Amino acid sequence: MTLIGTREPAAGLGPSLARAAAEIDTLFEVLLPDPPDPRRRLFEAMRHASIGGGKRLRPLLTIASASLFGVPRPQSVRAGLAVECVHVHSLVHDDLPCMDDDDLRRGKPTVHRAFDEATAVLAGDALLALAFGILADPRTHPDGAVRAELAAELAKAAGAWGMAGGQMLDLLASCESENLDSITRMQRLKTGALIGWCVEAGAILGHAPADSRTSLRGYAQCLGLAFQIADDLLDHDGAEEEVGKRLRKDEDRGRVTFLTLLGPERARRQADLLVEQAVEHLRCFGEQARLLEGIARFCVNRRR
Amino acid sequence: MTLIGTREPAAGLGPSLARAAAEIDTLFEVLLPDPPDPRRRLFEAMRHASIGGGKRLRPLLTIASASLFGVPRPQSVRAGLAVECVHVHSLVHDDLPCMDDDDLRRGKPTVHRAFDEATAVLAGDALLALAFGILADPRTHPDGAVRAELAAELAKAAGAWGMAGGQMLDLLASCESENLDSITRMQRLKTGALIGWCVEAGAILGHAPADSRTSLRGYAQCLGLAFQIADDLLDHDGAEEEVGKRLRKDEDRGRVTFLTLLGPERARRQADLLVEQAVEHLRCFGEQARLLEGIARFCVNRRR
Repeated sequence: MTLIGTREPAAGLGPSLARAAAEIDTLFEVLLPDPPDPRRRLFEAMRHASIGGGKRLRPLLTIASASLFGVPRPQSVRAGLAVECVHVHSLVHDDLPCMDDDDLRRGKPTVHRAFDEATAVLAGDALLALAFGILADPRTHPDGAVRAELAAELAKAAGAWGMAGGQMLDLLASCESENLDSITRMQRLKTGALIGWCVEAGAILGHAPADSRTSLRGYAQCLGLAFQIADDLLDHDGAEEEVGKRLRKDEDRGRVTFLTLLGPERARRQADLLVEQAVEHLRCFGEQARLLEGIARFCVNRRR
Repeated sequence: MTLIGTREPAAGLGPSLARAAAEIDTLFEVLLPDPPDPRRRLFEAMRHASIGGGKRLRPLLTIASASLFGVPRPQSVRAGLAVECVHVHSLVHDDLPCMDDDDLRRGKPTVHRAFDEATAVLAGDALLALAFGILADPRTHPDGAVRAELAAELAKAAGAWGMAGGQMLDLLASCESENLDSITRMQRLKTGALIGWCVEAGAILGHAPADSRTSLRGYAQCLGLAFQIADDLLDHDGAEEEVGKRLRKDEDRGRVTFLTLLGPERARRQADLLVEQAVEHLRCFGEQARLLEGIARFCVNRRR
């Protein structure tokens, strides 16, 4: 199934991504002001990490999913803002010297390089708390049960049973004993859980029926893996100045990835196949799912 | 006003603290099982940090506040568990080498010493996410709006406008320019915000009327400062093996505290005065507030 036909997916997605990015930046500007005391440093670090960078793919996923169910856009943008907070939180902490020890992120110095390690730890913590504050705010949805469900699902996706657990698996991955199963499991948690939340959040906001949720979960699961394989390919083939972060780290460290296990050609084919499977899950939504399809195609064709 | 008369407050509080501690430990055991894969290390680190240690004063505060409004105990214990997750999260991250660089906590090696720094960062992150997961779960309260309000207030108390902001102020505090105002502001955020949440949570769970909330906020504000002054006194006078963490660090580093600003005698008098003020705010609740009074008196007389 091809909903958006032969249009260049990346170009087609450009305006949607740009619009979401502008909305997210505007909300971050409001939520992260300049307090008149030394806390300013913490807010500056949070702004440094979160404003004016990133593709905002996760917020757009939530917006796209929510649009299937007629959710008012201000609500889905706020939910997208929350997941972006969690994503940025994870980047700030993953970049720390005790984790991946990275100097460059989204084309800028990482937070612990631009500020210091303690500030980076606190900024990451505060961004995680902020995510839940945004979801729990009545402006995200008038129904408290919806707000609580969003928060409950995000806590699962971000915590020990999701992203943090995946990061633990990644830290402990040994160079020899990993295989396609163990790498898949790790990535399903490390990146897949949050991507799954993005799509689920749209369904929660829109009181989506159970079968729609099942389809969306299928879409998100395929998309998450396709996204990660594309990330590995980008890490192998990309240009650092374009991607905005240090590349070929995994290779330098002899880490096992989808790419080392499959080789570039099979990895590319696998990513394409997963995108087709993801799109197949959208069939029940018809033309309305064009944006979700566009996101899936963009994920494996992006250059950053 | 003295509600509990001449009874020894610490001894009087013992059974209540022990009961809360047992309930909190039991819930942690359920929430932090032993997963059959390398994530085990993350869960072990979270268990190391959170089970079998700590006074559980914060959960008891929530339980005591909630009891004023007839909240079923399982609900207030769960809310207390959430705030304990945030408290432990902050201890794990504050102990990191880039922050306070501590080796001992609650009588055990700190998480980054018992495990490693990366695991400590992740365990702290996962505990923060877990706190919101607990609050957002319908078992904490059947009304979604109540769950969302608990989460919204906790996000404020834990994040950049609360605890994380206070920790930033603490990190930036210079040895010369601090005064009673700046130290008070810092401590109101660093420890006061979370203590305020504990008491507020009981009111939220119990749909407390506005005037009760105002009284409880007054109580919490006095209690938070009294608690911190008592902490400074304990840091000065306490025995490390009893307190379970490294003491006299602030003094060694020439940091400004309530103690250095006031001297031990005035600090002690100030803490006692604040406790009397805290108890005064409980007057409207009569005999029902005995536990909250006991907690306030315990806070300034504790030896750990």
